[in-house]
Amino acid sequence: MIDRGFHHDGSADHVSTLAPEPGETVTVFVRTPRDQRSGVYVRTTPDGEPHFTEAVIDRETEHELWWRADVVARNPVTRYRFLINGSGAAGSAAGTGASTGSPYGYRWLTASGLATHDVPDATDFRLVTHAAPPAWAAAGVVYEIFPDRFASSGARRELPDWAIPCGWDDPVAGTGPATPRQFFGGDLDGIRSRLDHVAALGADVLYLTPVFPAASNHRYNATSFAEIDPLLGGDAAYRALIDEAHRRGMRILGDLTTNHCGEIHPWFQAALRDKDAPEREMFFFTDDDLGYEAWMGVSSLPKLDWSSERLAAAMEEVVRRWLRFGLDGWRIDVANMTGRLRDADLTHEVARRVRRAVAAENPGGLLVAEHAHDATGDLDADGWQGAMNYAGFTRPVWSWLRGPQVRLPFLGLPADIPRIGGGDAVATMRAFSAMMSWRTLTSSWSILGSHDTARIRTVCGGDPALVEVAAGLMFTLPGTPMMFAGDEIGLEGAWGEDARRTMPWDRPETWHARTLGVYRDLIALRRGERALTGGGLRWLHVSDDAVAYVRERAGERLLVLAARAAHPPVRLPLGTAATALYGGADLAPDSEGVLTLPADGPAFHVWRLG
Amino acid sequence: MIDRGFHHDGSADHVSTLAPEPGETVTVFVRTPRDQRSGVYVRTTPDGEPHFTEAVIDRETEHELWWRADVVARNPVTRYRFLINGSGAAGSAAGTGASTGSPYGYRWLTASGLATHDVPDATDFRLVTHAAPPAWAAAGVVYEIFPDRFASSGARRELPDWAIPCGWDDPVAGTGPATPRQFFGGDLDGIRSRLDHVAALGADVLYLTPVFPAASNHRYNATSFAEIDPLLGGDAAYRALIDEAHRRGMRILGDLTTNHCGEIHPWFQAALRDKDAPEREMFFFTDDDLGYEAWMGVSSLPKLDWSSERLAAAMEEVVRRWLRFGLDGWRIDVANMTGRLRDADLTHEVARRVRRAVAAENPGGLLVAEHAHDATGDLDADGWQGAMNYAGFTRPVWSWLRGPQVRLPFLGLPADIPRIGGGDAVATMRAFSAMMSWRTLTSSWSILGSHDTARIRTVCGGDPALVEVAAGLMFTLPGTPMMFAGDEIGLEGAWGEDARRTMPWDRPETWHARTLGVYRDLIALRRGERALTGGGLRWLHVSDDAVAYVRERAGERLLVLAARAAHPPVRLPLGTAATALYGGADLAPDSEGVLTLPADGPAFHVWRLG
Repeated sequence: MIDRGFHHDGSADHVSTLAPEPGETVTVFVRTPRDQRSGVYVRTTPDGEPHFTEAVIDRETEHELWWRADVVARNPVTRYRFLINGSGAAGSAAGTGASTGSPYGYRWLTASGLATHDVPDATDFRLVTHAAPPAWAAAGVVYEIFPDRFASSGARRELPDWAIPCGWDDPVAGTGPATPRQFFGGDLDGIRSRLDHVAALGADVLYLTPVFPAASNHRYNATSFAEIDPLLGGDAAYRALIDEAHRRGMRILGDLTTNHCGEIHPWFQAALRDKDAPEREMFFFTDDDLGYEAWMGVSSLPKLDWSSERLAAAMEEVVRRWLRFGLDGWRIDVANMTGRLRDADLTHEVARRVRRAVAAENPGGLLVAEHAHDATGDLDADGWQGAMNYAGFTRPVWSWLRGPQVRLPFLGLPADIPRIGGGDAVATMRAFSAMMSWRTLTSSWSILGSHDTARIRTVCGGDPALVEVAAGLMFTLPGTPMMFAGDEIGLEGAWGEDARRTMPWDRPETWHARTLGVYRDLIALRRGERALTGGGLRWLHVSDDAVAYVRERAGERLLVLAARAAHPPVRLPLGTAATALYGGADLAPDSEGVLTLPADGPAFHVWRLG
Repeated sequence: MIDRGFHHDGSADHVSTLAPEPGETVTVFVRTPRDQRSGVYVRTTPDGEPHFTEAVIDRETEHELWWRADVVARNPVTRYRFLINGSGAAGSAAGTGASTGSPYGYRWLTASGLATHDVPDATDFRLVTHAAPPAWAAAGVVYEIFPDRFASSGARRELPDWAIPCGWDDPVAGTGPATPRQFFGGDLDGIRSRLDHVAALGADVLYLTPVFPAASNHRYNATSFAEIDPLLGGDAAYRALIDEAHRRGMRILGDLTTNHCGEIHPWFQAALRDKDAPEREMFFFTDDDLGYEAWMGVSSLPKLDWSSERLAAAMEEVVRRWLRFGLDGWRIDVANMTGRLRDADLTHEVARRVRRAVAAENPGGLLVAEHAHDATGDLDADGWQGAMNYAGFTRPVWSWLRGPQVRLPFLGLPADIPRIGGGDAVATMRAFSAMMSWRTLTSSWSILGSHDTARIRTVCGGDPALVEVAAGLMFTLPGTPMMFAGDEIGLEGAWGEDARRTMPWDRPETWHARTLGVYRDLIALRRGERALTGGGLRWLHVSDDAVAYVRERAGERLLVLAARAAHPPVRLPLGTAATALYGGADLAPDSEGVLTLPADGPAFHVWRLG
């Protein structure tokens, strides 16, 4: 049993509120084995100074004690952790665990688990008084659409010079000069016409990569933030799509480049033309060869200067305008670089301003950051309400489940995807999730692939059973599932541009039916079980080839087993029967209350515990 | 061998400069086993985006490869880490370690060691372009003096009402109303008269707890920052002490309460008297019973409001005035709370302002923060240049070395000092040191005890052999040793106030001669070996009862063994002889190059490796 039966997380069973008001007293609960009878404390650090409160036993179950303590949400981020003292209370005559009724020594319980030694505060649990992410975020399933490739209405439009017209079934050019120029002609009316597919799948949040006019098919080099690309159908088609999505109960998110715009954006052109132009301050002009700062030195993507009040105000108005138009939130491109340049680091300030702009138009709006590595330093800061969790989800899942023979570059690293064991995969997930609040974790996006990465089917070497395990993790671990359109029918792709393939609506024979069924079933499972969207997470078993965990909320407990290969049977002393919800058969405990889980693999199972 | 022979730290052997200019290209070196022949990269995150540079082999030794790569110090804190890729380079046909000439898999090397899975950026190595701490800080040995208890000149002075006169040999009242009122009459002339003792010991930095007038013997409740307490001899005696210290080549640090002042300080009295007083904004007045914010609610310590420009300017002038007077720097009291209150967190801004005030008067001045738990979040931010390292040094050392029968409260925790193994102690040290730059670590204070804690002799249950091990760690690990006056002669004390005992100058028979010799010898060793003040640190062995490490710089290598008890002999394949520098006999390697270290304990040994 991981953490020897000690457990707390930020979920509703363990904290009285996930959205405390400043100064509110929050009740927190921590679970221990039944033989930890005393010496449980919660430590907070109000205004920077440690403070301990002794917990009391709230209730007792057959297997554990639930302890209760109060934590005052004194600071915007109130960190707390638990001290398990098995070595005798201060000043007491007792100095051994036995004398305090505890066989456990000196232990800390933080979001990274049970530690036998002091650990830095970085992994403390967190209560956050900043505006909370909307509840629909953690409850939702996000469906990512790359507009040029999803669906076309068939409307004929005059193409700009840069565009290379392609037939819908033409192969994508994954590299080379044609990559950003291939124009397949997907549009917003096309998307709207295919919402039945999204609805049947069960996804309820549309995330569209940029829809502003731009001189590329990916549109991350916007030439305007003030209108929707006429090549996509313009504002009217966006209006119709948003309305239809809302009519169906779906939300829809935009994609905004706060870090840069396209070089032919009028702001930049004005700044370039005239050194005295008011737009000049919106960019970073330099004396080097290029003459201005640009994303990764790419000339078509001049970097925006958020120290310019003119720029900040203009971008805030962009954020607000499209929320007024109907968007339910934004995904922020390259959030990790936004506002950062040499000695300037305005990222948190930018994030705060953008979040406030969102809230001003839509208090239930969502703001999620793209982040290329470790977002934890930028979260819980009253800005980004979640991040695309490549670091804490995609990478460990890929490297646990990649096909044994697969060689693919590892998300920007000069290395192929490694193959690691379940222990390392779970350790990675815990290392990153421990450094954000629970609510930020659950509003962050669990991703198996996106328009910037390989497709999960390709990562898994084409093995649908491994894809099923990957999807199982995505839909049952804390975090908002975000799937790239086409993953559900088994599209392939070895890197981002190669993965931007068109949806073969007219070639259903190419759809991977098993995978589509897996996605539908898992989404339905997730949407039907509150324990999966809002429940806590306890890791029960970790080995090279299999991991098991429980999601639980208000007495509902789901047991999950994910295996990448056949493995020794996992035996869990849970003392109860398990009813199959996905992928397996019902299980009965033996005379000692032990459940023996199936040993096959790759396999994914979910049971309801009695 | 810890970390399997992979090593980097921020010391001079491994980075071309510890004080880079903004934008400077810094060469970093990483060491690997000889069978890691390719696939070594350094990762930086310029402006927030990952960037990889392949390292090249710089040189080869009998046991290892030294790899070289360039890192641009683009941001004020430039984080970097190493990727060890044993799984085949991206896009290569090779996918196994063997095919790239490396038997190692996918690994990251960060300041917390070698990881087999992705870890957050928090433990990345750091290059910092902020003003560096002065070189004398890391090279020094700090001697802490609590003025009322160190030495008296015998001058007769009229005592204020609060003072309870005590004879020099009277016992201290560790608890109760008399605790802050006992007046033993130590003074600045007394300190000056005893500098021979400090010099003979080898300490070269005096740190005096507050010397401003105050209504207590500890003087943390200053009634003025504008003069030195006449009860200590006033400005003239301070002048004489500083001059004499400087004449001897010593530095001297003050102790400033940036978080609060005493309630009878004229600022607070003026603010209290008149709601319209300009001083009103310097404090936090409230509607609660006390009527104002105070340190931990203690009415005598009203909290200062750093959002008041009047307060900030006044405190900056205090900082500067005494540096002009002659101080070499400040220790900042309760730095962890300074500027923090509910939703306000000005700590980093306060630290920056104070550091700039120091630099304005003395560019070689030092600024060190008291911090009660985990300072890492407040360091490398252009403010505090180091911290009192209770978290990363005192606590692990105490809990590794406390006497087996000792029951003492654990530094503010509702727990006795636990007894942990060497593995947990070293893991603690590494966990905290990994979250600060090397230069901040070496300018932070390694403390065995202070005026706020138990004495190390008492922690060790009176066992001088354990005290020797503790002192050995303090004087040979990275970090600036800070000793509380009296530790060197074996004074005792079970908690802070109890530890503030007078120095028994007239009772030399009570001095613990062995301990004094240990301190003198270890300080001399430290001061004579550049590897101990500026060298890198490699952990070679960790077990419950013994730890071994190497300090090394420019070819000089010292091997250290610290043991709290007899233990199985440690065998290290170092391939060289070892010449005893402290505590042991010379060692010769066996035919396979293995050194077998002594197995006795408690024991502390240092050897020079050939």
